[in-house]
Amino acid sequence: MTPSPSERLGAGTPRLSLNRWTFRTTPLQEFLEVTAANGIDAVGLWRQDVAEVGLEALRRRVDDAGLRVSSLCRGGFLTAAAEADRTAALEDNHRAIDEAAALGAATLVLVVGGVDREDKDLIGARSRVTEAVTALAPYAEERGVTLSIEPLHPMFAADRAVVSTLDQALDIAEASGSPAAGVVVDTYHVWWDPCLERAIQRAAASDRLFSYQVCDWNLPLAAEPLHSRGYMGDGYIDFPSITAMIKEAGYTGDIEVEIFNEDVWATPADDSAKTIAERFTQLVLPSA
Amino acid sequence: MTPSPSERLGAGTPRLSLNRWTFRTTPLQEFLEVTAANGIDAVGLWRQDVAEVGLEALRRRVDDAGLRVSSLCRGGFLTAAAEADRTAALEDNHRAIDEAAALGAATLVLVVGGVDREDKDLIGARSRVTEAVTALAPYAEERGVTLSIEPLHPMFAADRAVVSTLDQALDIAEASGSPAAGVVVDTYHVWWDPCLERAIQRAAASDRLFSYQVCDWNLPLAAEPLHSRGYMGDGYIDFPSITAMIKEAGYTGDIEVEIFNEDVWATPADDSAKTIAERFTQLVLPSA
Repeated sequence: MTPSPSERLGAGTPRLSLNRWTFRTTPLQEFLEVTAANGIDAVGLWRQDVAEVGLEALRRRVDDAGLRVSSLCRGGFLTAAAEADRTAALEDNHRAIDEAAALGAATLVLVVGGVDREDKDLIGARSRVTEAVTALAPYAEERGVTLSIEPLHPMFAADRAVVSTLDQALDIAEASGSPAAGVVVDTYHVWWDPCLERAIQRAAASDRLFSYQVCDWNLPLAAEPLHSRGYMGDGYIDFPSITAMIKEAGYTGDIEVEIFNEDVWATPADDSAKTIAERFTQLVLPSA
Repeated sequence: MTPSPSERLGAGTPRLSLNRWTFRTTPLQEFLEVTAANGIDAVGLWRQDVAEVGLEALRRRVDDAGLRVSSLCRGGFLTAAAEADRTAALEDNHRAIDEAAALGAATLVLVVGGVDREDKDLIGARSRVTEAVTALAPYAEERGVTLSIEPLHPMFAADRAVVSTLDQALDIAEASGSPAAGVVVDTYHVWWDPCLERAIQRAAASDRLFSYQVCDWNLPLAAEPLHSRGYMGDGYIDFPSITAMIKEAGYTGDIEVEIFNEDVWATPADDSAKTIAERFTQLVLPSA
């Protein structure tokens, strides 16, 4: 017999991970405690958390709360053309990889960076990303860290990520020649992609599907379009359908809920965690 | 010797067409006169113009101003599932095709419609578009009208167009089996697409590249993201590069400037027309 949602919640919500940024207005320690208290076993952390309390202390707090780290956000920003900027970016990514290793994070998420408004050279920016990921992957591999290249929604192609589709991210991962380079599927960024199912299968076939993140596509778009992410069920995304593709691909890892949304940030953390667990149990878990 | 921009402007600006919606705050007659007075030979019209003055009167005014009609916007909205809605949409598109024929418009632009928030069935919505275009194409063909399926930026996939890429639009056009079904390339919607160059070549190879529309991608996004379109040169799009792909594909038709932008709408029409002609001459025409 299928357990009811409340029975499931009582026993914890398997595979659910709460991304730290969903609770950015909540103090770190409270975030970890709310997560654990709601029977959720994993969190996605940010480098800002490392900066705030230090790497050792962060690791200890997460351990003390009995949590796994499903991902660390974020490395990347690899599109700069000037040599000094490129070198600085690679060094910063080395530190991010070290942090992911120290936290035992399942993967490091890479947001690759935007296009230079002066040269507008989208194709050049993309090839610099490929070069940089190829350079970073062996460093990650040696430390047991995987790199999840994140295709961002095309509305961020100019200013945040010149990688807009899962196929593009896979092209870059494969070009690196390293098994440590792969992709994250974030529903907000890729739900619209007509090639999504095929690309997820492709990621699975090359063992490069490292992370699955969920949230809804809310309309009207928020004034800051990054913040139009919503609770699953509040927008237009068909979670059972996309989650079934991910399952089909053999993904068995944590599923992170990452919501940037002013209303969510204004909600008490425990209420948000409960809403997320409910929606996850209704819309994601049955197909996962 | 290459003529200077001012010499070019003095002799008119070849291939430039002004889309009516770039001047939506300008009365229709003034829009036509400003266009002609600036040495511009073509306009893209909207069905709202037909509704305002009537089909015969609109045709006469355009003829009297000595202008061509490079496109009529817009048919489409073909994703409804209910039979009555589908029938109504097809009938409305028959009227749009008749209007395009009567205006001698080079093509009718189709914005295909969004996804139903209740069923969230993106794939179903897309297949209804294919069926509808297949049903409409013979009607258009008999009247000498071409249908330009418009891929809209993925940020409009939920509410305006479930066709987000040029390849998708071409899949639909080809599936119709009619030479009257093709595509429009609008830089705002497709500039980010990693498959753009190949898709433009594909459109050319099957004689389905019917229209080219230009405007820039401005940031930060306007509160209404449709209105973030800017004068060429104000944003992030590499017009020489994309225009060269269009030329390579053998496109020799009009190039429409379609800008939805509150600041442009607040500018006197003659000033806007001059800015557009200058930017077009600097950034588009040399590669066209």
